[in-house]
Amino acid sequence: MLLYDIGNTNIKVYHDGKVSIDNSGFFPKEKFYYICVNSAYHDSLAKIENAVNLKEKINLDTNYKGLGVDRAAVCKALDNAVIVDAGSAITVDIMREGKHQGGFIMIGLGAFQQSFATISDALIYTLDEKIDLDAIPQNTEDALNFATFQAVVGAIEKVRGDLPLVFCGGDGKKLVHFFNEASYHDSLVFEGMKKVIEESGC
Amino acid sequence: MLLYDIGNTNIKVYHDGKVSIDNSGFFPKEKFYYICVNSAYHDSLAKIENAVNLKEKINLDTNYKGLGVDRAAVCKALDNAVIVDAGSAITVDIMREGKHQGGFIMIGLGAFQQSFATISDALIYTLDEKIDLDAIPQNTEDALNFATFQAVVGAIEKVRGDLPLVFCGGDGKKLVHFFNEASYHDSLVFEGMKKVIEESGC
Repeated sequence: MLLYDIGNTNIKVYHDGKVSIDNSGFFPKEKFYYICVNSAYHDSLAKIENAVNLKEKINLDTNYKGLGVDRAAVCKALDNAVIVDAGSAITVDIMREGKHQGGFIMIGLGAFQQSFATISDALIYTLDEKIDLDAIPQNTEDALNFATFQAVVGAIEKVRGDLPLVFCGGDGKKLVHFFNEASYHDSLVFEGMKKVIEESGC
Repeated sequence: MLLYDIGNTNIKVYHDGKVSIDNSGFFPKEKFYYICVNSAYHDSLAKIENAVNLKEKINLDTNYKGLGVDRAAVCKALDNAVIVDAGSAITVDIMREGKHQGGFIMIGLGAFQQSFATISDALIYTLDEKIDLDAIPQNTEDALNFATFQAVVGAIEKVRGDLPLVFCGGDGKKLVHFFNEASYHDSLVFEGMKKVIEESGC
């Protein structure tokens, strides 16, 4: 089975259990399934006969208006969890008994860095996920890392409740260690896509 | 008494109890005191004979390395408080019994907006400080406002402890209502500057 997750930064490919990144913009001649949030690819993908857009096939129980297809797909993977997909943006979605309870979107860790640098040259720093969020910062580097990670970690804690916490996306690895009972799954979006294919029979 | 607070976005002027903004870049011929974090003005201000730079006059008890002069000045205003100066960046500093305990720097509310817009056109929103931080968002507009305000509010709560909370800066008015025992002081930086002048006798 061949699955494509086309994001704003990367194109992730799932091929028979293996995940890779292929930003070439070339798509295969065999049948493949995809989700796409990158508008630059919408038109060209729609013209490929062997490409199946899962957007309309996803049946997610939710009251949320305007949920991105990438968030909907990842939510299909787990019935009870707070799911954090940490990329250029960080999406946080709450699933309870198979129903989506809502969620939010934070700017990504790299976006914090870029934003600080835009405000002032004095606010350029290196991300350090070892920052201690229980200590009050005593220098600029720690002050910026504290703000970045506390913003993300605190907002996740705010909505977590009693649910297990599951991270995916490239920056998920930098966040998971801040939490108890949290795990990282590289291919969560593909697990969700496979469930959509199974349910819809497409 | 004539005081100038020269920031990255605005030049704030205190003249005998009244505060105004004057971004003209012209400075008065009479004696005035200033703090400046905008490097574009450093050289020209240094050449003005009647201009007194308070940077070297501020005597703040702290172990923090690299504290900006604007933060140091505002900290001089209060001996026991968490002080939040919310502008293009949001600085948060903790003062206890006249000693600075450390602090952090968050990106400003407008910087969150700009950063989201940079990630995707789908993430353009209007700031809404009436967002309910105890409800899980059910649409994109709420999801982005939740993230923005929870990032800032949550990080402040994390360091607040039992101290009173005092806001200043243009966006302070949008944040103060999220907290109990919190107040807004428009001219806090100038109160700090006056204390520095008094203490140093300059």
